[in-house]
Amino acid sequence: MTPREEILVTYRIETPGDPRRFADKIASDQSTGTFVPLPGETETLKDRAGARVHGLTELPPVATPSWPTEGQVFNRAEVTIGYPVEAVGTDLAALTTVALGGVWSIRGLSGLRITDLQLPPSFAGRYPGPQFGTKGTRALTGVQGRPVIGTIVKPALGLPPDETAALVGELVAAGVDFIKDDEKLTSPPYSALEARVKAIMPFIKDHEQKTGKKVMYAFGISDTDPDEMMRKHDVVLREGGNAAVINIQSIGPGAFLFLRKRSGLALHAHRNGWDLLTRHPGLGFDFSVYQQIWRLLGVDQFQINGIGAKYWEPDESFVRSFANLQKPIFSEADRAMPVVCSGQWGGQAPETYARTGQTVDLLYLCGGGVVSHPNGPGAGVRAVQAAWEAAVAGIPLAEAAKTNPDLAASLVKFGR
Amino acid sequence: MTPREEILVTYRIETPGDPRRFADKIASDQSTGTFVPLPGETETLKDRAGARVHGLTELPPVATPSWPTEGQVFNRAEVTIGYPVEAVGTDLAALTTVALGGVWSIRGLSGLRITDLQLPPSFAGRYPGPQFGTKGTRALTGVQGRPVIGTIVKPALGLPPDETAALVGELVAAGVDFIKDDEKLTSPPYSALEARVKAIMPFIKDHEQKTGKKVMYAFGISDTDPDEMMRKHDVVLREGGNAAVINIQSIGPGAFLFLRKRSGLALHAHRNGWDLLTRHPGLGFDFSVYQQIWRLLGVDQFQINGIGAKYWEPDESFVRSFANLQKPIFSEADRAMPVVCSGQWGGQAPETYARTGQTVDLLYLCGGGVVSHPNGPGAGVRAVQAAWEAAVAGIPLAEAAKTNPDLAASLVKFGR
Repeated sequence: MTPREEILVTYRIETPGDPRRFADKIASDQSTGTFVPLPGETETLKDRAGARVHGLTELPPVATPSWPTEGQVFNRAEVTIGYPVEAVGTDLAALTTVALGGVWSIRGLSGLRITDLQLPPSFAGRYPGPQFGTKGTRALTGVQGRPVIGTIVKPALGLPPDETAALVGELVAAGVDFIKDDEKLTSPPYSALEARVKAIMPFIKDHEQKTGKKVMYAFGISDTDPDEMMRKHDVVLREGGNAAVINIQSIGPGAFLFLRKRSGLALHAHRNGWDLLTRHPGLGFDFSVYQQIWRLLGVDQFQINGIGAKYWEPDESFVRSFANLQKPIFSEADRAMPVVCSGQWGGQAPETYARTGQTVDLLYLCGGGVVSHPNGPGAGVRAVQAAWEAAVAGIPLAEAAKTNPDLAASLVKFGR
Repeated sequence: MTPREEILVTYRIETPGDPRRFADKIASDQSTGTFVPLPGETETLKDRAGARVHGLTELPPVATPSWPTEGQVFNRAEVTIGYPVEAVGTDLAALTTVALGGVWSIRGLSGLRITDLQLPPSFAGRYPGPQFGTKGTRALTGVQGRPVIGTIVKPALGLPPDETAALVGELVAAGVDFIKDDEKLTSPPYSALEARVKAIMPFIKDHEQKTGKKVMYAFGISDTDPDEMMRKHDVVLREGGNAAVINIQSIGPGAFLFLRKRSGLALHAHRNGWDLLTRHPGLGFDFSVYQQIWRLLGVDQFQINGIGAKYWEPDESFVRSFANLQKPIFSEADRAMPVVCSGQWGGQAPETYARTGQTVDLLYLCGGGVVSHPNGPGAGVRAVQAAWEAAVAGIPLAEAAKTNPDLAASLVKFGR
């Protein structure tokens, strides 16, 4: 008999009761069981289809529950449960439903967080994975040996296509490698996607003809309607674009896969709303779990904040996310390119470099940090490039700034 | 000048700082702004594209933060922010990204919950809405004047198609109106959807031929891949089925809309994973907000738990959800049929009837409560019907049980 193949999911359980009892309950409820014993729920069926509790590690209890709950002390344990592939299959939506969804509904818990997911070999090759990733992004942008440096068109909302295109013209001339629509910009009445693409792409193509450098522009093609999103995708491709910003939470996994299967564009993921799923340390998901799903579905470039981000996320969390994206699930090809962003301006380059394994395989995205540089966006881009050169060479930024006035101006304006 | 049309979103803000400052920050960050003032961010542009804070009501502070946060006291306010349709458009994915997503990333908050959403007239007719709803479900099942009574095939996982079909044969014979696959069952190797449909539908059709009653069977056709989900949809339709269970969180809004646009089936929504988005009272969404999105996208039947559910959700929350589904967004046609479920067996009929406006427009779903009835599923169905008749007539169940042995047996087995 072959050993059964299992999907391993690790939960951190928190309860005023006994965590072991809840581990058993998850294994039963999320596979064969219901609230009363059933006629057909035989031992043979449980062996074939039932989930199994593999390991349980007690953790120190806490005095404050994650969900408001009656009690004095909240016991915690980390437990790994094995779900049989034979019963769940290899569809990610099925996996989500069985193992990553209903668990938050269980009465008697005061918290639950999913901290690890290990997919068995059956999932290898089941989904397309990234089409471009770091290697493809480098090939499309022509940037080697340093981070791809990007910026974001701001203001986020309100600019008509011609004004956006004029700004893009400035940014392209400034020497940036990558530009994106703000994730909040998709296709509002005043800036319909097709009009925007047609206004912007000539600037990209002119610059390419003049310099040989093709700036990657990621257009916001997200749409609730996958048919409409594909139409937008086709417009971008037809006009010579090569990337798109996708608000993965807003459209959901199915629509993303639909796009990926047909896509000719590098897919840049903005994980809008992710914070609700991870910010409470006792609830939701670790990014290590979440990012596996989206990488298998085909995210090429994954936004993960950065050092000193303007949002709530602590630096350590960003550093872990970066490592998550670097780690193969089944092969090197399923790694997504980390997009380091939020409040970035170059000043974080040394720490980013030091804490992410001294790699330059990343997209370094600066919004205000480039476009609000006191000497203009061109100086902003040069300052960021200089900061990364210094970081890689191990030269302190203050030192490097002595011979680089753009970096010096950045340090004065953005430095803390 | 026409007044600008706005999407109104109400947030309950919680912070050790000043909630007013965060209301302004949401309005700025989620529309035009970034972390530094921008050259193009003019007053005209802000007027056109900027969000506006409309009303702010201070709430009593709390001593415990929703997200673990330094501080002694956490100030709270409820604030309504108006987002201009001119800037956001009417795409729900854009709305989610702008107003219902990034807000949880803001540093300095100790909690944030979205408590209301009011869509302006531009959204009316923008999305298909329910195709069947209560009226269509009644037409397809032929049930009038009482709740549609349903059950769930259990065990949830592990039964091969022939064994499932045999169980369905029993349930159909028992007189149930509706049967569904457990949401965890989609298309695993041992029970591929097509094989299951082909095994089950003959029992449904035989019963229809013999009795004129067509039991609605909702097959679990969820699939991460919308193309594959449509293939499954087509199988169900071709074999004479008329409903499907959709795990809306697992596939996401885009894939759901893709299906709805092409669907000939009543779409029964299981909101797996919803609890993570709502269980903490200071975080996430009220169901009043969440259900609007899914109704516009086309949910026909919406699972919302019930009185005395086996899960964490308190009865009051279920009662509010029921009222949410009854309230038109733009018209009566966009109302979804409430599916009352989880630990139901008929005993909750009187309280359900009393607390939901004395309506019988609901699908009353009993899993173990029907299939584990001591005298078999047929008795289980009769007991549930008797319980609802008694509830509507205002007769206590104990009284009604005196002349109904099936109900009497239910009271003994399931009553508390």
